Amino acid sequence: MRTQVAIIGAGPSGLLLGQLLHIYGIDAVIVERKDPDYVLSRIRAGVLEQGMVDLLDEAGVGARLHREALVHGGFEIAFGGRRHHIDLKGATGGKSVTVYGQTEVTRDLMEARNGAGLTTIYDAADVSLHDFEGAHPKVRYVKDGTTREIVCDFIAGCDGFHGISRQSVPIGAVQSFERVYPFGWLGLLSDTPPVSPELIYVNHDRGFALCSMRSAHRSRYYVQCPLTDDVAEWSDDRFWDELRSRLDPETAGRLVTGPSIEKSIAPLRSFVAEPMRFGRLFLAGDAAHIVPPTGAKGLNLAASDVYYLSRAIREYYAEKSEAGIGAYSANALRRVWKAERFSWWMTSQLHRFPDHDAFSQRIQAAELDYLISSQAALTSLAENYVGLPY
Amino acid sequence: MRTQVAIIGAGPSGLLLGQLLHIYGIDAVIVERKDPDYVLSRIRAGVLEQGMVDLLDEAGVGARLHREALVHGGFEIAFGGRRHHIDLKGATGGKSVTVYGQTEVTRDLMEARNGAGLTTIYDAADVSLHDFEGAHPKVRYVKDGTTREIVCDFIAGCDGFHGISRQSVPIGAVQSFERVYPFGWLGLLSDTPPVSPELIYVNHDRGFALCSMRSAHRSRYYVQCPLTDDVAEWSDDRFWDELRSRLDPETAGRLVTGPSIEKSIAPLRSFVAEPMRFGRLFLAGDAAHIVPPTGAKGLNLAASDVYYLSRAIREYYAEKSEAGIGAYSANALRRVWKAERFSWWMTSQLHRFPDHDAFSQRIQAAELDYLISSQAALTSLAENYVGLPY
Repeated sequence: MRTQVAIIGAGPSGLLLGQLLHIYGIDAVIVERKDPDYVLSRIRAGVLEQGMVDLLDEAGVGARLHREALVHGGFEIAFGGRRHHIDLKGATGGKSVTVYGQTEVTRDLMEARNGAGLTTIYDAADVSLHDFEGAHPKVRYVKDGTTREIVCDFIAGCDGFHGISRQSVPIGAVQSFERVYPFGWLGLLSDTPPVSPELIYVNHDRGFALCSMRSAHRSRYYVQCPLTDDVAEWSDDRFWDELRSRLDPETAGRLVTGPSIEKSIAPLRSFVAEPMRFGRLFLAGDAAHIVPPTGAKGLNLAASDVYYLSRAIREYYAEKSEAGIGAYSANALRRVWKAERFSWWMTSQLHRFPDHDAFSQRIQAAELDYLISSQAALTSLAENYVGLPY
Repeated sequence: MRTQVAIIGAGPSGLLLGQLLHIYGIDAVIVERKDPDYVLSRIRAGVLEQGMVDLLDEAGVGARLHREALVHGGFEIAFGGRRHHIDLKGATGGKSVTVYGQTEVTRDLMEARNGAGLTTIYDAADVSLHDFEGAHPKVRYVKDGTTREIVCDFIAGCDGFHGISRQSVPIGAVQSFERVYPFGWLGLLSDTPPVSPELIYVNHDRGFALCSMRSAHRSRYYVQCPLTDDVAEWSDDRFWDELRSRLDPETAGRLVTGPSIEKSIAPLRSFVAEPMRFGRLFLAGDAAHIVPPTGAKGLNLAASDVYYLSRAIREYYAEKSEAGIGAYSANALRRVWKAERFSWWMTSQLHRFPDHDAFSQRIQAAELDYLISSQAALTSLAENYVGLPY
């Protein structure tokens, strides 16, 4: 098979890139190791920056989002038993974030792709990447027992942290930066009304908590937990009790509980691979970088990679110029590192670190105290939260 | 001897407090372990916040400062081989900092105290504090071989980190928070024109450097060095070469070198003691807290303690109210912790930490990159640098 761009991975990065390339008149084939239901079953982030919403609109998949999603002009930070409102709109001159589950983004992109009759190869086994240092990269995979090959101009590695794309780069060509945090997030999804119309990030002596939602009827809550915990030890009742104990009394009193639809423990990690381009192979999204979930930058960062990459590829075909492609890694990484910094900072401010000494804890408290007293600090937080410009 | 306030220590905190109390019509005696020349010989910070300058004016000792000091509306941060201007005035609505050596502040305060005929007991040995949990605290000391006693209403402990005041508090009544940094500052004072009209803070692969000054003819330069270094290993030539290697070529080319007047290595430490009041004993300045010198908050923080304390004592005598005294520790500490946070942050951003992994280094670079790209982040830096409101 021949295509212009072979996209590895049918998650939101790969699907969004495919949709944008389609609109630009560029052929792309997506190769995915799993089946569509598996991809849709992954519960992930749900807070979209304006830049990502704009990109979904450009890709022609924004209609349901604009009907169903919740637009949030602010959020709350709670510490010392008190909640403080962060006015995103006021601090950023009118910007906001959009609450819409990653699963819904993926579903909209899948439907658009199917509707346009574009090729996605699911259940592709043994995917391997070849010759991306030359002009004719190849992707091989096994489907229905037969080895197939796609010859292309470019490969976009959108297959996540554990995917084959980054692993296909020669050792020594990629430099990794990593931070593993000494705790996890225990998340619970339930069909209950959210405790508050906005997200509440909680710094508490017992650990971080987050009150989030997917819709007006579906809530997503998290509590910081030791990485050694087993989700089987956490009954729904124990989860709700723990969450309640980390909330201020007024919020705890409003909390509506119910049976969990999903419950899992996720580790927190910061990771960046440099560079993000290797000849004609590009990495985008989790294939190149991971952020801890605090601040909800993971999906948004995938979107900003796709923004830079889709424009670089369009420029290549439209203007016969390699300038955009040559600048992709540096442009993407500059924004990646700023989002990594923000995610690290928000994680550092809101969690209890078992290895923190008393000085570090006071510095954390002082930072939160300074934050709510300074319009400049609040504006800095807000501009990062709604998303720095592409 | 009987007085209203016994002040321990004739450094800038004690002298400034004494001068303000004098203006308020409150009697104070200062007891100092050393002689005046020793006090004046200590080379310290030289960047004053507007709030401190206002307080010196209120104390009636601002005349020479306003004649001789340099007013700085900005400074520079250099990293990645490039300098970036931080516009303090523009970011803070017209605020600036004043470059005037701590030695000069001390000299002006000493002269005013002598001129007013106020009592300062120098060379007081074996100073000890008594009965400050009751209504009649006492200070004892030995002078000319004889033990003397001052009976007072309050004791102000302004005698620095190693002073007797904090050590007089029962163990268990005070909680300490500390961070020791794994490097020192090698400082050199020389009668050479400053390399730049504004301070330059330098983040360099070889370590931090700072180009500062005391006047238009006297420069103060620093380079980060290992704590294990001996100042005897650092000839003037070696210092100048090292400094030059950390500056951008344009700045290095302008550097005028000369023989050192003073050269020393200072460790960097963050320290806070809580609370800052024990009955009728108050701690102020370095007796209660230390900041690393990055950002020049040490002297300014002493001034803000004196601001809160002088007003609390005035209120006590004028209004027979203990409200101000009761709130002193909490009010002072809230500002102390914000300055501790800022000093820790500036130190963290600008130095090379031997124990930093590659991820931490990239986060540092990302923070500086974000800083110069964001008006909000620049404003946050500027408002802390010129001094948060009292």
